[in-house]
Amino acid sequence: MGAQAEKWVLMVTARTPTNIAVIKYWGKRDEKLILPINDSISVTLDPNHLCTTTTVSVSPSFVEDRMWLNGKEISLQGGRFQSCLREIRARANDVEDEKRGIKINKEDWQKLHLHIASYNNFPTAAGLASSAAGLACLVFSLAKLMNLKEDNSQLSAIARQGSGSACRSLYGGFVKWIMGKEENGSDSLAVQLADEKHWDELVIIIAVVSARQKETSSTSGMRDTVETSALIQHRAKEVVPKRIIEMENAIQNRDFASFARLACTDSNQFHAVCLDTYPPIFYMNDTSHRIISCVEKWNRAEETPQVAYTFDAGPNAVMIARDRKTAALLLQRLLYNFPPQPDTDLDRYVIGDKSILKDAGIKDMKDVEALVGPPETKGNIVGEKSKGDVSYFICTRPGGGPVVLSDETQALLDPLTGLPK
Amino acid sequence: MGAQAEKWVLMVTARTPTNIAVIKYWGKRDEKLILPINDSISVTLDPNHLCTTTTVSVSPSFVEDRMWLNGKEISLQGGRFQSCLREIRARANDVEDEKRGIKINKEDWQKLHLHIASYNNFPTAAGLASSAAGLACLVFSLAKLMNLKEDNSQLSAIARQGSGSACRSLYGGFVKWIMGKEENGSDSLAVQLADEKHWDELVIIIAVVSARQKETSSTSGMRDTVETSALIQHRAKEVVPKRIIEMENAIQNRDFASFARLACTDSNQFHAVCLDTYPPIFYMNDTSHRIISCVEKWNRAEETPQVAYTFDAGPNAVMIARDRKTAALLLQRLLYNFPPQPDTDLDRYVIGDKSILKDAGIKDMKDVEALVGPPETKGNIVGEKSKGDVSYFICTRPGGGPVVLSDETQALLDPLTGLPK
Repeated sequence: MGAQAEKWVLMVTARTPTNIAVIKYWGKRDEKLILPINDSISVTLDPNHLCTTTTVSVSPSFVEDRMWLNGKEISLQGGRFQSCLREIRARANDVEDEKRGIKINKEDWQKLHLHIASYNNFPTAAGLASSAAGLACLVFSLAKLMNLKEDNSQLSAIARQGSGSACRSLYGGFVKWIMGKEENGSDSLAVQLADEKHWDELVIIIAVVSARQKETSSTSGMRDTVETSALIQHRAKEVVPKRIIEMENAIQNRDFASFARLACTDSNQFHAVCLDTYPPIFYMNDTSHRIISCVEKWNRAEETPQVAYTFDAGPNAVMIARDRKTAALLLQRLLYNFPPQPDTDLDRYVIGDKSILKDAGIKDMKDVEALVGPPETKGNIVGEKSKGDVSYFICTRPGGGPVVLSDETQALLDPLTGLPK
Repeated sequence: MGAQAEKWVLMVTARTPTNIAVIKYWGKRDEKLILPINDSISVTLDPNHLCTTTTVSVSPSFVEDRMWLNGKEISLQGGRFQSCLREIRARANDVEDEKRGIKINKEDWQKLHLHIASYNNFPTAAGLASSAAGLACLVFSLAKLMNLKEDNSQLSAIARQGSGSACRSLYGGFVKWIMGKEENGSDSLAVQLADEKHWDELVIIIAVVSARQKETSSTSGMRDTVETSALIQHRAKEVVPKRIIEMENAIQNRDFASFARLACTDSNQFHAVCLDTYPPIFYMNDTSHRIISCVEKWNRAEETPQVAYTFDAGPNAVMIARDRKTAALLLQRLLYNFPPQPDTDLDRYVIGDKSILKDAGIKDMKDVEALVGPPETKGNIVGEKSKGDVSYFICTRPGGGPVVLSDETQALLDPLTGLPK
C-alpha cells in the first residue's frame, strides 16, 4: 500500500435490478449452499423503477466490516452475507489506482475491512424480491471493487449463496437459473436466455397490495414446503422440467399466449404447494384473488391472453401485458376495480413509467372516477370496488442487468469518511 | 289399484344428514355415473342441527313428477334427478296399505307420478353440502315409498348418481366412499366405518363465513381441476390412498392427533389443487385463512392438536374439537377473533347445540365483549378483529344416518292434495 495508506477510501457504486420469476423457485436441496430443487426462469425488471443501489468501499482506516441498508446499520454476521464475502475475497485480485497512488495486493483483501451501503427504491420484504436485488448488487459491486475476473454467470453462483433468486439479477432480460447437479453448487448459476431488447413490447404493472412485512419468510416457507408438502417433489421433478422447456421456447418465439399460460399456471402452482404445506402458507389474499379474477375474465373475453400475472411470496401482483396498448387497457381496468382512497394523489398512486397512464387517457382523479366497468364484467362483477386495497401501482418493463455507476454523486458513502452520506 | 284409486295419496317423510369429508372427494373419472378418482371419508353431522327433510308422495291423481325445494318448485328434468328416479323405479316392488285399501303393483311405478318436497335447515349451496343431504334424502325416502329391498350401501350407489358426496349421507358416524373399479359404477358406494357412538367425544363447530352462493360449482370446479391441474392425478393416485388407510386407523383408534393432521392436510391439499386449476379456483377467503391461523397457533401452543379444520367448496370452516372442553375453549377463541356485528342477538350468532356456549361461560354479548385474547396469540395477533366476517356459528357433533319420520305432522306435503303444506 502507498504512503497515505491510512487515509484513502476506494469505492464502487453499482445498481442492480430485481427480477420476477415466471417459472418459480420454491424449495432447496441444499440449505447451506442454496441449491434449488428445480430450474427457474425470470424476467428482469427495469432498474429505473425497481432496483438496489449499493456502494462498497474499502479503506485501511476501517476497523470492521459494516453495512447500512436503507440508511440503517444492519449486521453482516448472517451466514448468507458471510458466504458471499468469503467467496468474493477468495477470488479478489490486485487493484491499483495510479492517479491516487493506491495499490491493493490480492492478499490484502483478507485483512482489509469493507463499508457497504445499500438502498432499495421500493419497500423491503414486501414480496418484491428486495433480497434478490440486494445480494446481487452486493456481489456485483464487490466483484468490481476487488477486480474479480469472473463473468456474471460465475458471479451469479456467488450471489446465489446470499439469496437464491439473487443469481437471476446478474442479467437483464430473460434469465434462467440452472439448478445444476454438482454437490458443491458450482454449476448452479444463472444464464441469460435473451436480453431485454429481444421482447421489448412487454409492459409490466405491479399492484403493491400490502407493504406490511410478510408473515412467513421465503426461507422458512420453502423449507416447510419441502418437509411437509406431498406435492412439491412431483412439481419439481415432473411438472417444472417440462414447463422450463416450454417457457424457453415461448420467450425465444415471443409467443405471448404460451408465455402467459405458463407464467400464470406456474404462479398458481407455487401458491398451491404453499397451501399444501403444513401448516399451510397463504401469501395471496382476497385482493390478490380479485386481481386474478379481473385478469382471467378479460383474457377469456378476448381471443388470446392479454395479460399474464405472477405472485411471489406476498400478495403483490406482477402483471405482464403483451404490449403498451394492452397495458393502458389493463391500467384502466385496475384503476376501475381498485381505486385509491379518497384524497390520494394520482401521481403517487401510479408510479414508474407514467406514460402508460397517459396512454390510458388518465390525467387526474376525475378521469379515474369517470372510468366505466370493462365489457367482460358486465353483470358479472369481479367483486365489490373497495378503495385502498391496493397501496399503489408501479408501471415498468423488462430491463437491463447490473451496471457500475461512475458518477460519484450517486455513491451512498462519503468518499472521505466511508460513512453513509 | 283399489276402487278409490283416483283419490289416495301415499307419502313417506324422511330426514337425512349432511356430511363433511375429512379425506376429500375432488375429481370424477366418469362424469355421467359420478365415479370418483379416489376414495373419500366423511363424518356425518348431527341431523338435529343440519339435515334435509324430504316428503315423497305418489298418487294416481298426479299428472307429472314435481318437486319443491325449500318451498319453491324446481325442475326435475336435470340428468341427476332423472338418474336417481330411473334407478329407483327400476328396483321398485309391490306396495300395499291394507288399512287404506291401496295396492300398487311393482310395474305401476313406471306410470305413477311423484310429488316431492324437500327442505334444508341450513343455507343451500353455501358450501354446507346441501346437495349431498338432499339427494341422499330423495333416494332414501323414495326407496321406502317404493319398498326397495336394497340396503343403505346399495342405495348409496344410486344417491351417488344424483350427487357424488350424497352417497356418504346414507350412514351416520364415519363413512367411506369406496371409489370402486367397475365401469358401470356398481361397486362405487358408501360403507360405514364406525357409527356415531364409536367416538362420541367429538364436537363440531361450523363457522358460516358467507351465505352467498358460491362462484364455482363443485361440478364444474372438479371437472376443470381434472382437465387442467398438473397435480390432481398425483394426489388421487399417490397421496390419497395412503391417507385413506391412515384415516381409517385414526378413526378406529380414536387417535385425534392423526385424525386432525390428516383432516387438515387433506383439506389444504384439496384447496391446493383448486388453486392449481386453470383458471384457478379460490374457495377460501381471508376469513377462512384467519380461522386456520387461529386453530394452527393454538394447536402448536398445545402439546397435541386440539382442533381439526376442514373446508369444502366454499369459505365456511368446519372445526372438529377433540372433546367438549376443547370445544368450549375453541368457541371462546372464535368469538374473541370473530365477534358479531353490533346489535346481533347472541342466540342467533351461535346456533345448534347451545350447551357448548354455556360450557364456554358465555351467556350474553357482554360476556363476548369481555373475552380476552388467548395465550397463544400474545403479541402475535391472528389478524385484525373484524366484526361480521362470520355470519354465525353452528355447534354440532357427529350424528346418525337417515331415518323415516312416521309422525305425519312432519310431512312437507298435504296428505290429501299432495301439494306443499
